[in-house]
Amino acid sequence: MKRVLVATGGGDCPGLNAVIRAVVKRAAQEPDWEVIGSYQSFDGILREPTEIRVLDERSVAGIHVQGGTIIGTTNKGGPFAWPIKNNDGTWSSVDRSDEMIRKLQYLGIDAVISIGGDGSQKISQQLFEKGLNIIGVPKTIDNDLSSTDFTFGFQTAVQIATEAVDKLVTTAASHNRVLILEVMGRYAGWIALHAAIAGGAEVCLIPEIPYDLNKINERLKSRYNKGKGNAIVVIAEGAIPKDGHVSGVQSDEIGYANLRLGGVAQKLSHDLKTIGFEADIRETVLGHLQRGGVPVAYDRVLATQFGAKAFELVLEGRFGEMVAYRHPHIVSVPLIDAINRPNFVEPDCDLVRTARGVGISFGD
Amino acid sequence: MKRVLVATGGGDCPGLNAVIRAVVKRAAQEPDWEVIGSYQSFDGILREPTEIRVLDERSVAGIHVQGGTIIGTTNKGGPFAWPIKNNDGTWSSVDRSDEMIRKLQYLGIDAVISIGGDGSQKISQQLFEKGLNIIGVPKTIDNDLSSTDFTFGFQTAVQIATEAVDKLVTTAASHNRVLILEVMGRYAGWIALHAAIAGGAEVCLIPEIPYDLNKINERLKSRYNKGKGNAIVVIAEGAIPKDGHVSGVQSDEIGYANLRLGGVAQKLSHDLKTIGFEADIRETVLGHLQRGGVPVAYDRVLATQFGAKAFELVLEGRFGEMVAYRHPHIVSVPLIDAINRPNFVEPDCDLVRTARGVGISFGD
Amino acid sequence: MKRVLVATGGGDCPGLNAVIRAVVKRAAQEPDWEVIGSYQSFDGILREPTEIRVLDERSVAGIHVQGGTIIGTTNKGGPFAWPIKNNDGTWSSVDRSDEMIRKLQYLGIDAVISIGGDGSQKISQQLFEKGLNIIGVPKTIDNDLSSTDFTFGFQTAVQIATEAVDKLVTTAASHNRVLILEVMGRYAGWIALHAAIAGGAEVCLIPEIPYDLNKINERLKSRYNKGKGNAIVVIAEGAIPKDGHVSGVQSDEIGYANLRLGGVAQKLSHDLKTIGFEADIRETVLGHLQRGGVPVAYDRVLATQFGAKAFELVLEGRFGEMVAYRHPHIVSVPLIDAINRPNFVEPDCDLVRTARGVGISFGD
Amino acid sequence: MKRVLVATGGGDCPGLNAVIRAVVKRAAQEPDWEVIGSYQSFDGILREPTEIRVLDERSVAGIHVQGGTIIGTTNKGGPFAWPIKNNDGTWSSVDRSDEMIRKLQYLGIDAVISIGGDGSQKISQQLFEKGLNIIGVPKTIDNDLSSTDFTFGFQTAVQIATEAVDKLVTTAASHNRVLILEVMGRYAGWIALHAAIAGGAEVCLIPEIPYDLNKINERLKSRYNKGKGNAIVVIAEGAIPKDGHVSGVQSDEIGYANLRLGGVAQKLSHDLKTIGFEADIRETVLGHLQRGGVPVAYDRVLATQFGAKAFELVLEGRFGEMVAYRHPHIVSVPLIDAINRPNFVEPDCDLVRTARGVGISFGD
Repeated sequence: MKRVLVATGGGDCPGLNAVIRAVVKRAAQEPDWEVIGSYQSFDGILREPTEIRVLDERSVAGIHVQGGTIIGTTNKGGPFAWPIKNNDGTWSSVDRSDEMIRKLQYLGIDAVISIGGDGSQKISQQLFEKGLNIIGVPKTIDNDLSSTDFTFGFQTAVQIATEAVDKLVTTAASHNRVLILEVMGRYAGWIALHAAIAGGAEVCLIPEIPYDLNKINERLKSRYNKGKGNAIVVIAEGAIPKDGHVSGVQSDEIGYANLRLGGVAQKLSHDLKTIGFEADIRETVLGHLQRGGVPVAYDRVLATQFGAKAFELVLEGRFGEMVAYRHPHIVSVPLIDAINRPNFVEPDCDLVRTARGVGISFGD
Repeated sequence: MKRVLVATGGGDCPGLNAVIRAVVKRAAQEPDWEVIGSYQSFDGILREPTEIRVLDERSVAGIHVQGGTIIGTTNKGGPFAWPIKNNDGTWSSVDRSDEMIRKLQYLGIDAVISIGGDGSQKISQQLFEKGLNIIGVPKTIDNDLSSTDFTFGFQTAVQIATEAVDKLVTTAASHNRVLILEVMGRYAGWIALHAAIAGGAEVCLIPEIPYDLNKINERLKSRYNKGKGNAIVVIAEGAIPKDGHVSGVQSDEIGYANLRLGGVAQKLSHDLKTIGFEADIRETVLGHLQRGGVPVAYDRVLATQFGAKAFELVLEGRFGEMVAYRHPHIVSVPLIDAINRPNFVEPDCDLVRTARGVGISFGD
Repeated sequence: MKRVLVATGGGDCPGLNAVIRAVVKRAAQEPDWEVIGSYQSFDGILREPTEIRVLDERSVAGIHVQGGTIIGTTNKGGPFAWPIKNNDGTWSSVDRSDEMIRKLQYLGIDAVISIGGDGSQKISQQLFEKGLNIIGVPKTIDNDLSSTDFTFGFQTAVQIATEAVDKLVTTAASHNRVLILEVMGRYAGWIALHAAIAGGAEVCLIPEIPYDLNKINERLKSRYNKGKGNAIVVIAEGAIPKDGHVSGVQSDEIGYANLRLGGVAQKLSHDLKTIGFEADIRETVLGHLQRGGVPVAYDRVLATQFGAKAFELVLEGRFGEMVAYRHPHIVSVPLIDAINRPNFVEPDCDLVRTARGVGISFGD
Repeated sequence: MKRVLVATGGGDCPGLNAVIRAVVKRAAQEPDWEVIGSYQSFDGILREPTEIRVLDERSVAGIHVQGGTIIGTTNKGGPFAWPIKNNDGTWSSVDRSDEMIRKLQYLGIDAVISIGGDGSQKISQQLFEKGLNIIGVPKTIDNDLSSTDFTFGFQTAVQIATEAVDKLVTTAASHNRVLILEVMGRYAGWIALHAAIAGGAEVCLIPEIPYDLNKINERLKSRYNKGKGNAIVVIAEGAIPKDGHVSGVQSDEIGYANLRLGGVAQKLSHDLKTIGFEADIRETVLGHLQRGGVPVAYDRVLATQFGAKAFELVLEGRFGEMVAYRHPHIVSVPLIDAINRPNFVEPDCDLVRTARGVGISFGD
């Protein structure tokens, strides 16, 4: 009997369970393979006693419809930087990667499928360099990876953000308000960009295109002057003003450092009022609602393709690779390439051109 | 030709358009009636020039599916306390009710249907006492009116809050987190109570049952000790701790005064950490998402019943009354009674008993 | 240790799992009670070996969000008319009720909670008369029971039917078509009535109000003459023409006997064409889609109340009773009363009046 | 002032309104362009009086959220084969293309954007060859066009079909039934294939892979033997058995000719029973529900890109071309190429491999 260990790491993402199910269902077609789940990424391996369990077809029945991951996830440091509490209460980290590889051997694990984001795949590459038979499955709800056309979870987040815009639009119109919706996207503005187009927002602010507060002010004012006194602004959590500060205004009260969730929307609201925008402004922060719930069909299909392909890469012994989607094919790319090629919104890409074409302002 | 004026006031609420449509469709069956919409409650009447328009079947086609109100709404003071800006920049208010009644006569308005909440219906009663032919339609998303079994908009808000719990549950389980969801309910906890039961939350905090922080701490800790390290807490925006402060702990950093949207969830999170709760806690604030979007079928049916009945009360000349739902009948009650009978959650009502019965803690 | 057996019988209905979960969660608060699930109603008891299992909190975690029933259901005859295959291949039935009661005693079952419809509750009453400690929980997606304000599952079915109307409306308008939607309701037209109002249909045909084909023809034609060449007709599967046949037309091709699913919609379509209606007509049959999927919040709350109450009736020893909803209370009524009081749509009830008030034709 | 005429032809498809809105919003950014909508494809031009209207930003506000098309559509023959009724009641067709082109000139139309499927784009090509300045926008809910990665409407149909599977799954499991879901796809099985993977079906039958009834029987039986007595079968409306008839069985009662909507599902059900499959089987036909309703975010984004690009092709004078999606670019291809390259499911493509990999049977 051969064994493949599956682990999910990093932030929650709709489709994780569909990947796990596909690995298990695909492996069930081979006579001599068993799938083992490690609890909360590699923590399940490193803990004493280990927290791992066999995943058979029964244990994954129906999970592709559910958000989350049945084997848990974590944002902790991983085997190369395992956090330990010092006697004085402070925290250090130790490298437990050798120990983990030994444990995997001891447990008879022949290969590992690591489903996770940027950080997880860097760990995958390091483990691969140490000789571990590892395959990566990319997981980034922000879709910020250029080695694959799309990643699962992204369309679900876009759908949820778009439905939020749909809900806010009628309230904005009924009350003559500006409603600001803060969505995910610390470095890449894809969710904001898609939701702004799909929802028909007036303004879209993303990390890749720093905004000029005065431009936003003008745009919103012009709507009020035209007698359409309402607007939706979709802002990515990583959106930043052009000079890092409010144009022409010193903003001492609200700094950019340590902005918590919702801070970006509130800061924009505050700054707009500071420079004299008079209409009613309200903020909504989607937050964790974007990461949960039933994945849309698109993400379930993509996640299923990723999971089945990952197991096939194991069968083919193509370790050190990561599955990827190159329409209409599911392919694999070297992990080392994948983790070095982020996918940001190019300010002159077709999608931004479309957005500008239908009248969406980026505040630039 | 006789004319009935329709106005919607107060916060947005799913179903407003279905009420308006029902008034118009019902009136269209009488040969000699015309429906006029006043923009943003009575503001449309009081402005110069007036902002009113004829509402015919074409103008209301399909609107019952939409959130918001096609005739706009406002939270402003109304005719008895119309805000005016003084020369020094401060605000005062003047009574323009007589002027409004004269304007309505001048425009040939025979009756008024006022769709709105507590504040709006108090104005309706005052206008009625001044001789205006007015009918009220209750609108309170919080369902805090005892003269009617239910109000429209409430079930939509509950559905949205429940879907939010559904989304958060899988993330909470995957990450071993406590997720706090703040929902509407400043004085009445109905939305929180229904969503907690429907979503399967562990803790439900409502204004009517002040909570003891230590009780919540114990409850959540016990889950962690049982190995189920996750929980959903649904908190109404008006929930308060038992003594108005954190039990046994002085909370100077975060006061209760002027808590903005999301403050209640953040305060609970902060206070739990203060008394030593160790697990990961995150907050989500539903905010305006609860008020927007497509009404659920239940609310569309109820709103349609209210609208059709309101016009029939006009036909019958039963002014000074408000429509209400007493299953399975649509009835009317005197406005004067309706506005004085709020509907709070009784701590020993059947629904709270059910909640406790399935293991939901109210932190008391 | 005391034991209560739970069984679900009859057609699938959203909310069944929420009832089961509530029974289990409520029982978990009593120190000495265990809940046993019988597979596919009482079949699990009668089979050899028995198919029953203990239901603890872990086994019902999260099931309130799911459609269906985790303990299975069946439309078979029950213990009083257990089907057996004769040697010649035909079927007879035998009374196995005494055997079942003995088996329950042998298994140490102290009480039974039977969740089911009309047929199931008749069996409950018969078993009660034979001395079994039994409590009924009503389950009828058609809402056709007068002893309770509402039953769970109904609002979910209405919501699904309404969303179907929403989807069909835009196609009907784009293509200038008449679209007929067949929904559930063999004897009671509640689902059709609610969906027609919530969706804004032009025609609603229900079993309680036999329709005149010519009236429908006139109504639809008048829309075409007014230049609005489209309409939605919602028809309950049990709707019937006034004289049991098409007015003034002999319909030999399609008889009323043995109409299969969708037959009612197709017959209406065929008959309309027969009497000369010229526009494009298409039919859609919702069928099983109305019974499945995630229950709406309303049904989850009601089902949870029913489940918790049912167990409390067990504790109180109030056997022979059925839980019911009398807003805002959850009460109990004698089974004998409940099963004899169906709840049909009264042609002059408030809801039909509302429907007519907003221009919906019943074809009468 | 320059004028571009927009027309939508063929079956309804979610996203049509988003294309129209994008054309209008994009054109509004050019100082001298006006958009004209022709009612029901080119019928609006050919009728007397013409049925066309100016589309400005106000007339397209918010329509991207709605299904259908605000300018109507038709399945009629088009200008080259305009249907006319003969004196004897039969129908002929005439070529009115020259007349239409003259009328467009007379109306000052500088260019035409034709949004439509296979049939519409063949007409576009013919009109282009006659000298008309025409741009095509592909519309096929079946996604059966190889010149573009995806077409709008498809993901919405897949999402609706997947949600139907989700609803049926719990009923199938509760009742131990086989549920057959018939979805769109007369020649291409993409919708069935995606929905089967996303929903977790056991069997998927598509036009491109003829099925062997005995194989399906074996597969379903094996589930029953394993004690999992339920299954979902997703069947495309164009699915066919291997030899055009039931293997080894003559099916005289139900022929393949003139099968109406739902006939394919019913035939499969009938044939399975004929060869001895014993479990309970039920059919559901999605039908028009797949074409209507709110487009998913994916389709709104794609449709918006198509609309904006189509107008830009007009500006650039690239007539005789059709917009297309080549991730991540929106490009254009000659109409003549596009209409000759259908996109069928290759039996050995990656997606079919994935489906087989997770255990889905194609009955081959």
